[in-house]
Amino acid sequence: MPPSPIRKLVPFAEEAKRKGRKVYHLNIGQPDIPTPEGAIQAIRNLSDRVIEYSHSAGHEGYRKKLSDFYRKIGLDVDYSDILVTTGGSEAITFSLMSTTDPGDEVIVPEPFYANYNGFSIASGVRIVPVTSVIENGFALPPAEEFEKLITPRTKAILICNPNNPTGYLYSQKELERLGEIVKKHDLYLFSDEVYREFCYDGAVHFSVLKLKGLDEHVIMTDSVSKRYSMCGVRIGTLVSRNKSIISTALKFAQARLSPPSLGQLAGEAALNTPDSYFTGVYDEYIERRNFMVEALNHIPGVICPKPKGAFYTVVHLPVDDSDKFSQWILSDFDYHNQTVMIAPASGFYATPGLGRQEVRIAYVLKKEDLKNAIETLAEALRIYPGRTLK
Amino acid sequence: MPPSPIRKLVPFAEEAKRKGRKVYHLNIGQPDIPTPEGAIQAIRNLSDRVIEYSHSAGHEGYRKKLSDFYRKIGLDVDYSDILVTTGGSEAITFSLMSTTDPGDEVIVPEPFYANYNGFSIASGVRIVPVTSVIENGFALPPAEEFEKLITPRTKAILICNPNNPTGYLYSQKELERLGEIVKKHDLYLFSDEVYREFCYDGAVHFSVLKLKGLDEHVIMTDSVSKRYSMCGVRIGTLVSRNKSIISTALKFAQARLSPPSLGQLAGEAALNTPDSYFTGVYDEYIERRNFMVEALNHIPGVICPKPKGAFYTVVHLPVDDSDKFSQWILSDFDYHNQTVMIAPASGFYATPGLGRQEVRIAYVLKKEDLKNAIETLAEALRIYPGRTLK
Repeated sequence: MPPSPIRKLVPFAEEAKRKGRKVYHLNIGQPDIPTPEGAIQAIRNLSDRVIEYSHSAGHEGYRKKLSDFYRKIGLDVDYSDILVTTGGSEAITFSLMSTTDPGDEVIVPEPFYANYNGFSIASGVRIVPVTSVIENGFALPPAEEFEKLITPRTKAILICNPNNPTGYLYSQKELERLGEIVKKHDLYLFSDEVYREFCYDGAVHFSVLKLKGLDEHVIMTDSVSKRYSMCGVRIGTLVSRNKSIISTALKFAQARLSPPSLGQLAGEAALNTPDSYFTGVYDEYIERRNFMVEALNHIPGVICPKPKGAFYTVVHLPVDDSDKFSQWILSDFDYHNQTVMIAPASGFYATPGLGRQEVRIAYVLKKEDLKNAIETLAEALRIYPGRTLK
Repeated sequence: MPPSPIRKLVPFAEEAKRKGRKVYHLNIGQPDIPTPEGAIQAIRNLSDRVIEYSHSAGHEGYRKKLSDFYRKIGLDVDYSDILVTTGGSEAITFSLMSTTDPGDEVIVPEPFYANYNGFSIASGVRIVPVTSVIENGFALPPAEEFEKLITPRTKAILICNPNNPTGYLYSQKELERLGEIVKKHDLYLFSDEVYREFCYDGAVHFSVLKLKGLDEHVIMTDSVSKRYSMCGVRIGTLVSRNKSIISTALKFAQARLSPPSLGQLAGEAALNTPDSYFTGVYDEYIERRNFMVEALNHIPGVICPKPKGAFYTVVHLPVDDSDKFSQWILSDFDYHNQTVMIAPASGFYATPGLGRQEVRIAYVLKKEDLKNAIETLAEALRIYPGRTLK
């Protein structure tokens, strides 16, 4: 596995900090939103004498409450359709391992979450990218683009909705289109929905679990990491109505014994989080996003689509090479002793050469930090030697 | 992956409980020993506002304290040689994935921990068993038995020391013998040492990390699960002085983001557990083991070696087929409305047909429960229709 373009930047960010510079992290998905008080309290009230393994599929009580949670948001999910996993990461790995053989192929719209590369290497499958483009805000590519890529080794299509890194929210129509491809070619459809609760401008999330007639095909990945801002508890879920997938995934789950017990305690308590928490989070992100999109589009040569979900956006920059620019801004630049760390988009594309003028920006900082960060970025773009805007 | 012989028994155990029978679980490795108070308190004192990801390799502070811990027990380990993993399970999976290609082979003395099958399937490697036998208490097979099995695809030897399921503790001489094989054939040596703290009768554990000249070959797996009786926190470690292995394993670690943060909090606090805790645990297990070994050997036709480590033993029973017997005892038998669940040894062997007269017994119950369980087992063996002792 080659190191990702973001990881290559880490030593440069560390060096900048050693020089006493303030580095704004626009590169990461670690929100600064507080974890719900109920989840923290559940941990503080731990009453166990022995911190034991849970059931390999997760505590039955937690799975039953998760099933209620899904039903409340319109997804008819029985608790036996749910495996609690060690983060969404493990849910995706189990999905791949339970449905593919080494050498099989999975089609993924690019740009995509870079860690899908690691999961596919671990599972021995090959990611086949289908390219989405900034011009339409990274909408789902047309059906024929998918069909061109389908071979006898194609086993599944994997999407992330809302999307990391683009922030794009797939519409019901787009998902139904995907559903038709999946059914026609007898594929699996994996949907990573860990950003489901982050949909803006009144947009409604449409889950793959709502697609009709696709119960045998669909596997949904979920996680408490973003919803409740508790990435560190490492609790996710794999959901499928296909009993044979659940049974196979359970074997992998049994081999690793159980998901973290303390995380499940937090996850179960978090299900009682009041709506006001989410309203607060929503208001905060909308404000950050609106501010950021407007500020970025004000910078000459920058194109920033207005994402409808998650807390990322992929932005076009007027630079020769965003890998180089992202390094330069850390190593050779500062603005009032400040700089920024951004994620070069090359790491989110599987097709060589794509994303060279794009970066992913996460709006997980509070507004005044975002303001400073974007001012710094604007100044960097103004003086960067590899600037392409003349 | 076929279901393991233990898992096939679960519905029978559930049915026995529904009938109102007391089922003694001699089949599991979930100790009843309390988690150290310091670890529980650390969780109760959680002061984080946001439960964040840790570093993918684990909190640096925790790794540094782990390195001190290893140095105190005579293992010269730098914190950069350590990756914190999601349980020992993940450490073994990362070890396999970081050193093998699909189709490679790993030699494992059988009987072995059944979950090694799951990890090897997930990693695409094939386990090649080398048989150890009850007659010498499951000592390490001779070097020539290993060498017979080495092919161009052999990449590693994997041992568990002290051993689950046999309780056998490998001696320094046996490990040095293994070290020579490993060096001669340029293999890796994986050692699962999660039961290190459970060595009895004054026996001293010899870690593979003490083998001279094998820094590039050795990967050690460790875990807090058994040492501190907190299996549910899911915190383990992968330790190797081979920088290239650490660097590759870190990439898999980065793909899954981080090990559980709350578990690391407990793990770090547990490092301050006073010696008196371990003395208490030691005394408890010695008493259980001595009681159990003696009681088992008193049953006609039963042969139980006296294990020097862990909290399991593989026992010979005078039965036609331990899979059948283990099911029969749950479904068709009770003694004063009690029965026992035991683990048929067939699941711990890769060679078909082996272990048919053996079961694994865990002595993780308190003595009075063990006493009832073994009385029940004795009565079952007396009247079992498939009894081989005439």
